[in-house]
Amino acid sequence: MSTAKFITLGCGSAMPLKNRANASHLLCMSDKLYLIDCGEGAQVALKETGVSTERINNIFISHLHGDHIFGLLPLISTLSMRGRRSPLTIHAYKDLVELMEPLRNYFMADLSFELTINPINPRKSEVIFEDNKVVVSTIPLKHSVPTCGFLFREKEKGRNIIKEKLSQYDIPLAAIPGLKDGADFVTEDGEVIKNRELTIAPKPTKSFAYCSDTAYTESIVDIIKGVDVLYHEATYCDADESRIKKTMHSTARQAAEIAKKAGVGQLIIGHYSSRYRKEEELELIKSEAREVFPNTEAAQDLSVFRF
Amino acid sequence: MSTAKFITLGCGSAMPLKNRANASHLLCMSDKLYLIDCGEGAQVALKETGVSTERINNIFISHLHGDHIFGLLPLISTLSMRGRRSPLTIHAYKDLVELMEPLRNYFMADLSFELTINPINPRKSEVIFEDNKVVVSTIPLKHSVPTCGFLFREKEKGRNIIKEKLSQYDIPLAAIPGLKDGADFVTEDGEVIKNRELTIAPKPTKSFAYCSDTAYTESIVDIIKGVDVLYHEATYCDADESRIKKTMHSTARQAAEIAKKAGVGQLIIGHYSSRYRKEEELELIKSEAREVFPNTEAAQDLSVFRF
Repeated sequence: MSTAKFITLGCGSAMPLKNRANASHLLCMSDKLYLIDCGEGAQVALKETGVSTERINNIFISHLHGDHIFGLLPLISTLSMRGRRSPLTIHAYKDLVELMEPLRNYFMADLSFELTINPINPRKSEVIFEDNKVVVSTIPLKHSVPTCGFLFREKEKGRNIIKEKLSQYDIPLAAIPGLKDGADFVTEDGEVIKNRELTIAPKPTKSFAYCSDTAYTESIVDIIKGVDVLYHEATYCDADESRIKKTMHSTARQAAEIAKKAGVGQLIIGHYSSRYRKEEELELIKSEAREVFPNTEAAQDLSVFRF
Repeated sequence: MSTAKFITLGCGSAMPLKNRANASHLLCMSDKLYLIDCGEGAQVALKETGVSTERINNIFISHLHGDHIFGLLPLISTLSMRGRRSPLTIHAYKDLVELMEPLRNYFMADLSFELTINPINPRKSEVIFEDNKVVVSTIPLKHSVPTCGFLFREKEKGRNIIKEKLSQYDIPLAAIPGLKDGADFVTEDGEVIKNRELTIAPKPTKSFAYCSDTAYTESIVDIIKGVDVLYHEATYCDADESRIKKTMHSTARQAAEIAKKAGVGQLIIGHYSSRYRKEEELELIKSEAREVFPNTEAAQDLSVFRF
């Protein structure tokens, strides 16, 4: 099993800075790529990562604020100019369907690939996507417009069969699914071979939760309980806590409180306000989160987190 | 009179690269700022220039291809978040009005400033804007969608009055406009004082033409004749000339041919295809233009050209 990776393409918030693009993130899980939010500049950052955009078949949009979606049209245009063939699905709040319609007709009348928008309901937690490796569910968040985060969980894997045992016990192919599920094997002579002799346990499945944008809300704790990695927005430091009420964002400390209550493995923070431009300000934000949840990392543009 | 400046915010074409953003340019003329095209990333590049966006009151859009306009919504959003008050006018092909309508209602319902779109006709050359210092006319171009360039001309300036002469000859304020226009002054005693004794000639007015995107078309030569600076797209080098027919772009050599025929002072080229990524490829493009028109400069992102 390959390592999962989370790459922050843009760690900024509403107003981008030179090295802090609007929200956009790439998740690599079970060798599949998922784009999460797509602010202005996403396509250029994606190019910097060196991944093939052809491998991205799903884009998850947390909410329809410009800083999370203004990179969509430019990205789609470029994909089409490059002759992409694979279908692409955007999972987003239903309003995007109507908003995209005239733009699609005008700018993408001859798109080289099939583009689908999957309208999602950000108000309840439900499975919105699954492929053969990963299941994605929504995480209702608390923001000024309908917003949800996304929970990515690798599917349970079957036990790994020890190849030499297949010939040693003359095991037929038909028996393999059972072995993967943990069944013992009975030879033609009636001998019972314990599953643990034939297989080894699969590596544990991985999980990742993305929560941005949101005010502090404990309602998400049960949904994200025990995930390996939580990305939670941390727009402000303690000194600017007064701003969270109006803007419906979180402080770094609040992000850490959620991480602690949910018992996650690691917290990654980002989505910093553009008021913090100095390195030491980001250090402060990180340290405030670490006071509550020590295993916290602060994202920068193009940071790569492996788990 | 201050120096005029042309800054390429993005010297790329359809597909942006890390250091080659989509088309976007800033012209500073007679101390006023004009944005020309607004591709993805324009707002971040603008911030890099250090100019106050509050001083930009007019945006000129050559045509409605994504690489020239996808930075508009993000820029407008940011201006509003920063509490801009000054009105802003976008001069663009009429279709933009309808395209912007739903986006405006959704993303900019509470814009902090007045936003107007001035629908222009790219098919004929006419004055589309003037303020107290500059006149802007369209330059019909030859591209796959309705497209025009823009000709910026400083208005004729009055002659500069030599202050000491006002008291020396006891010249009343009412006579000043006449003197600026070149009239002589007649004293109360009937003595005629020649204008050249009272004034000095104004510095010559400046002119700048922007021509992108376009195939080679000599129809623009008369319109841009003798401008101080011509920015002309140069998407391809000679070796890729076969591409210009389908894409309706120009080679660097063709841009230089236009500059030569129009007898401009200086040619600036840009809008390079993303197929050219190496420094030596840009050098080749520049050298091909210089073979025809020696006073050619090749723009890079954030290049500043003073004239």
